[in-house]
Amino acid sequence: MKEYHVFYAPELPENLQLPEEEAIHAIRVLRMKEGDAILATDGRGHTYEGVLAEVSKKWCRMEIRRQEAIASGWHGRIELAVAPTKNMDRMEWFAEKATEVGVDEIVFLDCRNSERRVVKTERIEKIVVSAMKQSHKAAKPIVTSMTPFQDFIRRPFEGQRFICHCYDDSDVGTTAPMLFDVLNVAGAAQVLIGPEGDFSIEEVRAAISEGFRPVSLGASRLRTETAALCAVHMMFLKKMKR
Amino acid sequence: MKEYHVFYAPELPENLQLPEEEAIHAIRVLRMKEGDAILATDGRGHTYEGVLAEVSKKWCRMEIRRQEAIASGWHGRIELAVAPTKNMDRMEWFAEKATEVGVDEIVFLDCRNSERRVVKTERIEKIVVSAMKQSHKAAKPIVTSMTPFQDFIRRPFEGQRFICHCYDDSDVGTTAPMLFDVLNVAGAAQVLIGPEGDFSIEEVRAAISEGFRPVSLGASRLRTETAALCAVHMMFLKKMKR
Repeated sequence: MKEYHVFYAPELPENLQLPEEEAIHAIRVLRMKEGDAILATDGRGHTYEGVLAEVSKKWCRMEIRRQEAIASGWHGRIELAVAPTKNMDRMEWFAEKATEVGVDEIVFLDCRNSERRVVKTERIEKIVVSAMKQSHKAAKPIVTSMTPFQDFIRRPFEGQRFICHCYDDSDVGTTAPMLFDVLNVAGAAQVLIGPEGDFSIEEVRAAISEGFRPVSLGASRLRTETAALCAVHMMFLKKMKR
Repeated sequence: MKEYHVFYAPELPENLQLPEEEAIHAIRVLRMKEGDAILATDGRGHTYEGVLAEVSKKWCRMEIRRQEAIASGWHGRIELAVAPTKNMDRMEWFAEKATEVGVDEIVFLDCRNSERRVVKTERIEKIVVSAMKQSHKAAKPIVTSMTPFQDFIRRPFEGQRFICHCYDDSDVGTTAPMLFDVLNVAGAAQVLIGPEGDFSIEEVRAAISEGFRPVSLGASRLRTETAALCAVHMMFLKKMKR
């Protein structure tokens, strides 16, 4: 696998100047000079091939020679909402791995039993950006900061909505089929993963009444971050363009 | 999810004395006393319910009241052989997550382009044991230390054997279908995942001539440990008992 550097410049193509961090990496670390070939992405599905037109000590500007729209590798949208774990490392690796596999949006949920109420998304954003570059994707997953559960389930959404819980079907009043078996290939899908202490039964019932379908991820008992990654991978497997 | 402690005592049922580490955890940390109920596993698919019969300062012995054979959650066997990454943290989380999802054996491969030649399996063993307990499984994945690639592919194996590589089909002479699409529900399956620098073309050809089938994990470009976990998850999804 040939390694080449991809720069992240969200303001392309309007603003041809690289963001400061990216510019300093190009100038100080990679020691790039005027005229050097450069590859960048806007994180919204486009790549830009070009050359460095101007290079100063702290900033640089690229000139676009070729712009390309990169289609996503899957049909529809893949969205995952998860109650963050106490230990942020586990959420950080989930965000990295989900980005490598394929996800359009990651939402952090504030639930009754959440072990953590605040998430600094700056670090997650950095991890998601470098995972996007490393896996040669042109689209950056949207990272949505802590959202109250009750607000989130009432948001309008065009597609399939699922919730994973550990209650008995009898407590909830509906059976939970295997997520992979009920996913559609086309269209958007959204899965909710609860905290280690699980969603409250009221939260599960509220989600069901808002149109979420209870699903299972299989017999294995998974930690929150593992369940979230497995759900993303199931959506990718069902929706990937073959 | 109710939390209860599961002890790992690989010598059960012959040796009723808990291993020192487990005994100390029971006595010093959980402050368990004679007569307390205890749940243990031998890591070979059996659980043992009983009571602590004798408790000293440093060791304790259990008395078995009920022994149960726990069937695995999937059909056949799930085996994953991977070239370890330079950064062992990445292999450690792979081992933890693969154990949570479901895997029977993890093998570390010594390949032409391996970034690391030595793997201390003691730490991996510890991680796999705690992941087994945490995910309430009764079977511990076998962890096989560094094995030369050429030896491994010549080992007899009853089941489907696959190799993931990043070469063009034309270089290899066979197309690589999606792993998930060609997996059988029944029987054993084994997948080889290469180092960041990929297998050498000679290694890929040697594996093919030994009966390994080249497969793809999908369009996404994955790091070694992510590819390994996705392969395990695909095998689990195909083979899990529904």
